[in-house]
Amino acid sequence: MKFEKTVQYKNGVVSYLDQKRLPMEEVVLSIRNYRVLIETIQSLQIRGAPAIGIAGAYGVVLAAREIFSSASSRPQWLRMNRAVHEIREARPTAVNLSWAVDRMKVVLDAASHSSKKDLVQALEEEAKKIMEEDLKIGLSLAKEGKALIQNGDGILTHCNAGGIATAGMGSALSVFYAAREAGKKFTVYVDETRPLLQGARLTTYELKRWKIPHVLICDNMAASLMQRGQVKKVLTGADRIALNGDTANKIGTYSIAALAAFHKIPFYIAAPYSTFDPKTKSGKEIPIELRNEAELLSFNGRQVAPRGTRVYNPAFDVVPAKLISAIITERGFIRNPDEKKIKRFLSSP
Amino acid sequence: MKFEKTVQYKNGVVSYLDQKRLPMEEVVLSIRNYRVLIETIQSLQIRGAPAIGIAGAYGVVLAAREIFSSASSRPQWLRMNRAVHEIREARPTAVNLSWAVDRMKVVLDAASHSSKKDLVQALEEEAKKIMEEDLKIGLSLAKEGKALIQNGDGILTHCNAGGIATAGMGSALSVFYAAREAGKKFTVYVDETRPLLQGARLTTYELKRWKIPHVLICDNMAASLMQRGQVKKVLTGADRIALNGDTANKIGTYSIAALAAFHKIPFYIAAPYSTFDPKTKSGKEIPIELRNEAELLSFNGRQVAPRGTRVYNPAFDVVPAKLISAIITERGFIRNPDEKKIKRFLSSP
Repeated sequence: MKFEKTVQYKNGVVSYLDQKRLPMEEVVLSIRNYRVLIETIQSLQIRGAPAIGIAGAYGVVLAAREIFSSASSRPQWLRMNRAVHEIREARPTAVNLSWAVDRMKVVLDAASHSSKKDLVQALEEEAKKIMEEDLKIGLSLAKEGKALIQNGDGILTHCNAGGIATAGMGSALSVFYAAREAGKKFTVYVDETRPLLQGARLTTYELKRWKIPHVLICDNMAASLMQRGQVKKVLTGADRIALNGDTANKIGTYSIAALAAFHKIPFYIAAPYSTFDPKTKSGKEIPIELRNEAELLSFNGRQVAPRGTRVYNPAFDVVPAKLISAIITERGFIRNPDEKKIKRFLSSP
Repeated sequence: MKFEKTVQYKNGVVSYLDQKRLPMEEVVLSIRNYRVLIETIQSLQIRGAPAIGIAGAYGVVLAAREIFSSASSRPQWLRMNRAVHEIREARPTAVNLSWAVDRMKVVLDAASHSSKKDLVQALEEEAKKIMEEDLKIGLSLAKEGKALIQNGDGILTHCNAGGIATAGMGSALSVFYAAREAGKKFTVYVDETRPLLQGARLTTYELKRWKIPHVLICDNMAASLMQRGQVKKVLTGADRIALNGDTANKIGTYSIAALAAFHKIPFYIAAPYSTFDPKTKSGKEIPIELRNEAELLSFNGRQVAPRGTRVYNPAFDVVPAKLISAIITERGFIRNPDEKKIKRFLSSP
């Protein structure tokens, strides 16, 4: 399967495709400064749980190149640790970001007595490793997941769990790519995914490139398709999976999970091991990012609701484990996920 | 309670508030031509089941004024009958339009040997009657429905079933106005209602004027609020109620009805008798209007999804009677609606 890398890195420069401008414009931007990288993550120019993990890892590289002079000093280490913390906290819900930054921190601390050159090189190697692992995982996930798709299926997906949400292969969408390569015929129903339309803008963009038949709907139309028997299964990505299997994903995912349960349609999650968070016991402990009211009150800078209207704008919701038929991972399916099965998955090689 | 008339008529001129421009601009437009009135209904400048019934009735008045010369002729009657048919079919789902136009047709046929002046006057009187009945119904509906609202309630609504969707009082929203006047304290959660944002644009606009606390959400956030226990009941309007109680309303209504059932939250419909259609046995027989793909592919004229993307864009969905706790009418509640109860309601005075 062909894919492009979502985040590229060379000689102190991170470059990426601006996801806010897709699908109308394909603009590649470059960053040398870790603070700009944080803004890039917060404004969703780079988005998707695995992708922001990779971006965060390179953020640590940029910070190290920027902050340390040839001989590191105590004030520089204080600044560096603050930078690492800021990158880690850029967005709170997806665990991949803190997971990747924590891996970088281990390397950083181990290299604390090295020269700047060696330290930066060690960080660059670790960030590259995180990215390459994710690419390999995408391929494994696709291979494991494709059995899910049957000829004639209608499959609903939400938000974008595609190549650009990961290193380059995708989580939920990689399953579609693999099924397509295996010659299966199916239709993907794409929730537009309000308020930021990642489905309408990004998932359609990727499915079009992969020549997978798809139909765009408003989020509120999914139930009607289920009622008519057109949705045979639901498949989405994830931002954080708690130890008991409760799963946070883009706002609206719980809505379709509950609707799938109501219509007795299986609901699947596709996610790599980096999305599992053993430190979070259940969904109740997952912090939910609340975003700006302007995302609902205006559209492309144009006002759509009366000024001063109160808004509730959570970026994520939590699907209880009991509504999840299976989690597709790079090492197979976790069916009816619970703490015991997830612990076993996380401790196996 | 104070309200303004949605559709005004004087001396051959229909004037109305352009609902496409709300809430940013309050523009009153005037029409003398029935074809323009049809376009006004089709483009949703006038919308809402009872309101398009009233507009349709006045459309018949405009057509008669336009088509007949002082002595009517056979070709004029052919043109007139065609005009009546076109008005009746302007939008297919809401039954109020055909119901109102059919009432006008009865008056038209009865006046077929009258002078143009008498004929137009008879039509004007019938249209006025339809409008005034709807205003009275709104008041009765509000009075009947307000018992539903308890202090501290969080109530979810979808689309706009307000004053501007009716003659001036509203169906679902009139219940909120009456409860507010009775001093009750509650919060309305407003689904923005994709794709045309009638919730974000119109319901917020009306609730603000009535000083009713409200919170705007994306349609895909309603489930999350239900999961958190913040929605105590759901209340919407309706476009057509079949004899068995199955109810068509704005797309997304079935979604929240199914979610309410899943969360064991009562789901209510508020609708006047003109929304009931005894000729439609069940929801399966209700025609569902499919609207233009551009409503999803672009926003305010700006493209948001790749060109050529396939779109499914039904304007309505159907809530099965078994998911409806009660229909609030101007003559009280029809609890657990079924054919027997609806027949009794329609045959009682």
